[in-house]
Amino acid sequence: MADGIDGSGFMPGERAALAHAAHGPLSGLTFAAKDLYDVAGSPTTYGNPDWARTHPVPPSTAPAVLALVEAGARFLGKTKTVELAYGLTGENVWYGTPVNPAAPDRFPGGSSCGSAAVVAAGEADIALGSDTGGSVRIPASYCGIYGIRPSWGSVPLTGARGLAPSFDTAGWFAARASVLRRAGEVLLPRGGEGQLGPCLRVQEAWMNAHPSVASALSPALDAVDAAMDGCLQISLIPETLAVLYERFRSAQAEEAWATLGDWVASTGPAFGPGVGERFTMARDMEPGQGAAGRTFRQGFRQRLLGLLGGGAVLVYPTSPMPAPKLGASPEEQLWTREVTIGVTAIAGLAGLPEVSIPAARVDGAPVGLSLVAAPGRDRALLALAERVAERLGLSV
Amino acid sequence: MADGIDGSGFMPGERAALAHAAHGPLSGLTFAAKDLYDVAGSPTTYGNPDWARTHPVPPSTAPAVLALVEAGARFLGKTKTVELAYGLTGENVWYGTPVNPAAPDRFPGGSSCGSAAVVAAGEADIALGSDTGGSVRIPASYCGIYGIRPSWGSVPLTGARGLAPSFDTAGWFAARASVLRRAGEVLLPRGGEGQLGPCLRVQEAWMNAHPSVASALSPALDAVDAAMDGCLQISLIPETLAVLYERFRSAQAEEAWATLGDWVASTGPAFGPGVGERFTMARDMEPGQGAAGRTFRQGFRQRLLGLLGGGAVLVYPTSPMPAPKLGASPEEQLWTREVTIGVTAIAGLAGLPEVSIPAARVDGAPVGLSLVAAPGRDRALLALAERVAERLGLSV
Repeated sequence: MADGIDGSGFMPGERAALAHAAHGPLSGLTFAAKDLYDVAGSPTTYGNPDWARTHPVPPSTAPAVLALVEAGARFLGKTKTVELAYGLTGENVWYGTPVNPAAPDRFPGGSSCGSAAVVAAGEADIALGSDTGGSVRIPASYCGIYGIRPSWGSVPLTGARGLAPSFDTAGWFAARASVLRRAGEVLLPRGGEGQLGPCLRVQEAWMNAHPSVASALSPALDAVDAAMDGCLQISLIPETLAVLYERFRSAQAEEAWATLGDWVASTGPAFGPGVGERFTMARDMEPGQGAAGRTFRQGFRQRLLGLLGGGAVLVYPTSPMPAPKLGASPEEQLWTREVTIGVTAIAGLAGLPEVSIPAARVDGAPVGLSLVAAPGRDRALLALAERVAERLGLSV
Repeated sequence: MADGIDGSGFMPGERAALAHAAHGPLSGLTFAAKDLYDVAGSPTTYGNPDWARTHPVPPSTAPAVLALVEAGARFLGKTKTVELAYGLTGENVWYGTPVNPAAPDRFPGGSSCGSAAVVAAGEADIALGSDTGGSVRIPASYCGIYGIRPSWGSVPLTGARGLAPSFDTAGWFAARASVLRRAGEVLLPRGGEGQLGPCLRVQEAWMNAHPSVASALSPALDAVDAAMDGCLQISLIPETLAVLYERFRSAQAEEAWATLGDWVASTGPAFGPGVGERFTMARDMEPGQGAAGRTFRQGFRQRLLGLLGGGAVLVYPTSPMPAPKLGASPEEQLWTREVTIGVTAIAGLAGLPEVSIPAARVDGAPVGLSLVAAPGRDRALLALAERVAERLGLSV
């Protein structure tokens, strides 16, 4: 635990600079990028000092970062991430856990904790994150801002560090729905506009949410209902969310060890709480578990593609609860992780785009409402989120 | 009530003859056609003697009938229909209500009563019917045979009498799933094959069914579940099935009067029980009701297209009960009509293809299980019905 620990979302120390276009669709806006995206000449720490120490300073800049500067956005610097992006609370003992500007006594959520924090604090208009199992959606929900996990494969992760490549997505945050959408117009491939519908309330995810969350999100659900001419209720997961959590966890862990296991085993890095335990779990997992996760995923993805291919949108609370308090016990953190991933695994397993809208507050802490669509419908989803925000009276 | 009243599904009197191709995909199979399809040189009665009296003998044969003879099927003759196809019990006081071969003390269902009866009696392999509000699906369910209401507009109704053109579809019956499919390969446009999924149990339609029906159909639902890798439950109709019935009834009645009102008003035909009352209702309906039906239909159809466009299939009991007994009171018949149309209106309003599988018996009477898909997916639906029938141990 080094000098430079602070509660900002930005990485401590000197900030990398990048030239931006004078004119472009994002002129006048600022952005930051999670410290797993390469910026030429600046170290990529991946949230862990041993990673930074054992990897060269990158000579080039990740295309997603370049796309934003080329669109005229001004780059402000790198933001903190959970170590190797393997965690959902947003804790980082090496560079300091960012303060959650919307609820300072609670975790900011992660792994894209710094990106969420700088946007929630009004320090940047846009921030790039990444989302494997909820790492954009959860901090968006916890910090009261917009966040998108785009369709898997739609935004390049070239020049960005990976955790579980078949799950990893780029993603970004904004405090306004229109800015989230405008960043999407730069980052996303063409196409995927057009009308979406019907909206489907996923019964299990609403039942899984704390009753106070379900109740606080009710006006937002009404706004979705109005924007989409009515919602239907669907029971999506005959297997229960606990099975979804387990399948996701296993498939992700198998890939995480395949991706990072060599480095972990050869370097023996120092890790903060939880991260090392997750890699040990990934290393020691029975091979059958990973295979079961992969097999389940195929069927689940197929089912979701069939359900959503015509334009249907799933709607449910992004997280079942607001952010856990900073003093939460390891047991409470693990339980929160399980019930949260049971929901985030829906889009995670099926590669679906998901937008979280800062739709309500519970006990003074934010909680998001998610809209989820078929792969490739990201632009339509961002436009829908903006319409819902308008109906909710949020400044778009 | 003339001579020639009998309990056969065929129209009384001389049977029209048509030459068929010597070789073709339907060689060796026989078929009949509801007496609202024109066959050159033979009167089209439309189930009513006054209709027959006031219309010339058609000079040409309906394309749907021609398609079957050109595919090698042998035409056996015309079958009875409810007058002007405006009724669901299958009663015809002029030509005789066909006996339901599967449950002789019960109605055969209509309006394509004769077509269902000749197939259920083993007198024809295939029979053409038509389906506006359930007129193929209901007699298929009641007589224990397969029936399809195809996607609206997919099979030409040229040379066939209409009731409510924006709802009217051709349709056909068979005692075997493979024969139903083979007729479809001749009648349906190319395309629409491929995998379907997921399967969605429509909660309201299962709740609406008599508990004994829901219970008897449970093994069939398991077969669908197995054929489709699991079913999800969806609540499809926030408006309740009663609203669906009312919107369907109004929109259909408005069109029925627009189509047939001039003839009814100028001819003053004698009608059997119920039919005249329905035309009077259609004539006297407040204009706002028809408009409300049309408006509702647009939104409902859009919602269903979004839900099913990716390949999802709805599954529910074709009829909430087996056929009413022959002595059922007018009140009981009306009530049955209302709760039945509440379900058949799903595909009716949205123009969806629906296949009914003879999946169970209750109190010794048949009841069907329906599979419903997006418009144009008829071929895939027929293939799926065949797979489900195989799993159910039915002879396909």
